[in-house]
Formats: sequence, structure tokens, C-alpha cells
Amino acid sequence: MKIPVVTQILKANDSVARENAVLFEERGVTLLNVMASPGAGKTSLILATAARLDEGLRPGVVEGDVASSIDADRIAEAGIPVVQINTGGNCHLDAPMLRSALEHLDLDALDLLFVENVGNLICPSNYRLGNDTAVVVASVPEGFDKPHKYPGIFAKADMILVNKWDLADVFDFDLDFFTRGVRMVNPEVPILPVSCRDGYGLDAWVSWLESRIPSPVPPGV
Amino acid sequence: MKIPVVTQILKANDSVARENAVLFEERGVTLLNVMASPGAGKTSLILATAARLDEGLRPGVVEGDVASSIDADRIAEAGIPVVQINTGGNCHLDAPMLRSALEHLDLDALDLLFVENVGNLICPSNYRLGNDTAVVVASVPEGFDKPHKYPGIFAKADMILVNKWDLADVFDFDLDFFTRGVRMVNPEVPILPVSCRDGYGLDAWVSWLESRIPSPVPPGV
Repeated sequence: MKIPVVTQILKANDSVARENAVLFEERGVTLLNVMASPGAGKTSLILATAARLDEGLRPGVVEGDVASSIDADRIAEAGIPVVQINTGGNCHLDAPMLRSALEHLDLDALDLLFVENVGNLICPSNYRLGNDTAVVVASVPEGFDKPHKYPGIFAKADMILVNKWDLADVFDFDLDFFTRGVRMVNPEVPILPVSCRDGYGLDAWVSWLESRIPSPVPPGV
Repeated sequence: MKIPVVTQILKANDSVARENAVLFEERGVTLLNVMASPGAGKTSLILATAARLDEGLRPGVVEGDVASSIDADRIAEAGIPVVQINTGGNCHLDAPMLRSALEHLDLDALDLLFVENVGNLICPSNYRLGNDTAVVVASVPEGFDKPHKYPGIFAKADMILVNKWDLADVFDFDLDFFTRGVRMVNPEVPILPVSCRDGYGLDAWVSWLESRIPSPVPPGV
């Protein structure tokens, strides 16, 4: 009985995700679904990225957490429009949750919407939110075996960042082993070491991201 | 429709967990349910603990992972009986999975069974496996806000270890803030900083653990 019910939930989610995708397309907003383990540095990455974006690109953030508004408070302090979703016990964001959050954002004032998913390397990968660009933020202290152990989320990534790269030596991080795990499920995805602490790799990441954002259509065209 | 089905799943799980608990009681095995984020150091903690156990206590391990046998291989190399459960896409272990794994272990040859749950700070806390002693392994690089963000799992912990304590200065780890988060949901649980790298705190942890293991009944009594 369990599996058919889950399938229905996923189908219902995908239906709302398609509606979200149409809405983002109409409003000219690019959706970034940021997924990671707890504490990999998703919020720091979003803040560091927003600070480096081309001036013409206006970011917004939806924060997903089981509880608390700690991350949303950090984003708001940086002057970025943000909505917090508290999922209660739920282990992932889904498309209907995102749709509810969108009622509190002015999409016409945004070009790029970061959605910080709940910290979890498993469940979020099953739930599309819209026409997602999926970014998985791995981090050095978690260890280099994670793609081997949690292949599902790495399979769906459009970009994989390896954060806290300034600690690669401290943790003897084996990027080759990490990369082999990714390549078993995702042959083409770019893998970029970055550090939100010292800025390493962030320019390359932001260039890649900006290349995926369509140029805005001038008013009246 | 979703919530009633989940309730049924949880009730079915609890029923098998009670059966597991009876089995462990009969065989004189203490069950340790080790829960944490991906990469917090569960396997290292199990290995470091087993190496420090009183000689009369015989450990065994059940390894839960979405995929791979990387952790089970490490345990086996240390000469400890181990069974690997691969959950496929599943985000937690449940009592029926554990029962299946037990068919491959000689419980009469064990006093202490470590169950390394799937790396996830949310879902595992809802599924009892038997008469669990629940240990949550937090880790310094994840950040000190995790109990505020993921209260459910910290609420159910009988012991909280803060691993990778040798890096507390590098990450400016605020143990007071961490502790306040725990105390909001779990007023009495012990919180012990440890480091599997330099051994800090492990003697205190192993003493606590051994105090929870009943003395074996001598044969013939």
C-alpha cells in the first residue's frame, strides 16, 4: 500500500511544480534549488553568491527548515527579500509549499530565486519545485564518500559544489574518489571546489550561474 | 490521505520494534541507535567506542546506508561482526529492516549492537528499532544551530555527542547556543564533546555507555 500512495504524492507534486515553472517563466525568474546535508553551508553559499551577482540581477530567497528562522534572519540582515518555510517534521520542501511561499514575494522584482531546501541528502531529490536548476552543496568535513552513499541526489544535480575547500588538507579530502562516485550516476555535471570562508572558486561558480539566467527582456519589447 | 497512511506505517513499525525489544532482552543485547547527519562521524565513533569497550563486552554492528558497503567494510576490517542494510532510496532504518538484518548475526555472541542509521537528522527519529538507546552524533563543522533547526531528533536522544571537537576553535563552535537549543526540547540529556581523531571525551562516553549495559548473567544462574 505504501508505494502507490507515495507515487500519488509525487505525481501531485509534479503537477504543481509544472504550474510553478510556468509562473517563473512568465515572470522571468530563474529557480535555484539548493540541496545539501545539514550544515554544509547552504546559507553561507547563498549570501556569498548574492554578494557577487551582476548588479542587474535581483536575488530572492525561500528558506526551508524543519524549525527556526535562523537562516532567514541572516538573509534578511543582508537586505535580500526572503520567506521562511517551517516544515514541522517534514524532511523536504515540495512544490505546493513553494507555491504558498511565493504569495509573500514580489516575483516581478526578482531575477533569481534561491530555494534553500531542508538539510537532507535523500528526500529533497524526489520533489521538483518548478523548472529547477539543482545545486548540491557537499562539504569537505562530511567526507569524500558521500556520492557513493547517497547517489540519488548527486544524480539529479546540475552543479555540485564542494564547500569548505579551505579545509581540504585538514580532512585529507580525496576529490578523485568523490568525483568517481559522482560520475557513476552523473557523467557530465560540473564539480567545483569552493570556500565561502576565503572565496575560493566562487567567481567560477557565479559565472556558471549567471550563464544560466536568461537576459531580461527590456520593457516594451 | 497522507497522514493516516503514515500513522499506519509508524504503528506497524512500533509493533515490530516491540518484538525486536523482546528478542534483545532474551538474548541480553543492548541496542544503540546511532543517528546523525551524513558525515558527522558515526562509523568512526563506533570503531573508537568498540576499541575502548571493556574486554568482556562483545560488540556487533548493523550498517544502514542508502547505497554502498563502505562503512561495513571498515567495521569488518576491525574484526567486528557486521551486516550492511542498503535501503535503496529510503531515508531511515525501520524495525522490520533491522529484524531482517538480525537473521545474519549471532545475537548470543553479542552484548552490544550498534545500529548506524542512515545519515539524516529528520526521518530516523520517527522509527523505533527496539528498546533503543538513542545516540545523536552532532559534529562541529555542521554548526551549533542544529538543535534549533532539527529539534525532533535531539528531543529523542538519550545521549548527544558533539564530534570533531578538535576543530571547535576553527569553527568558533558555540556550545552554549547548541546546549540552549537542546534544552528547549530535552532538559536532561547529557551532551559530551568528543573527538574520534584525538580521543577527547571518549572515555567519558564509553563509561556512560557501559553503565547502561546490564551485567551478563553467568551461565547456569
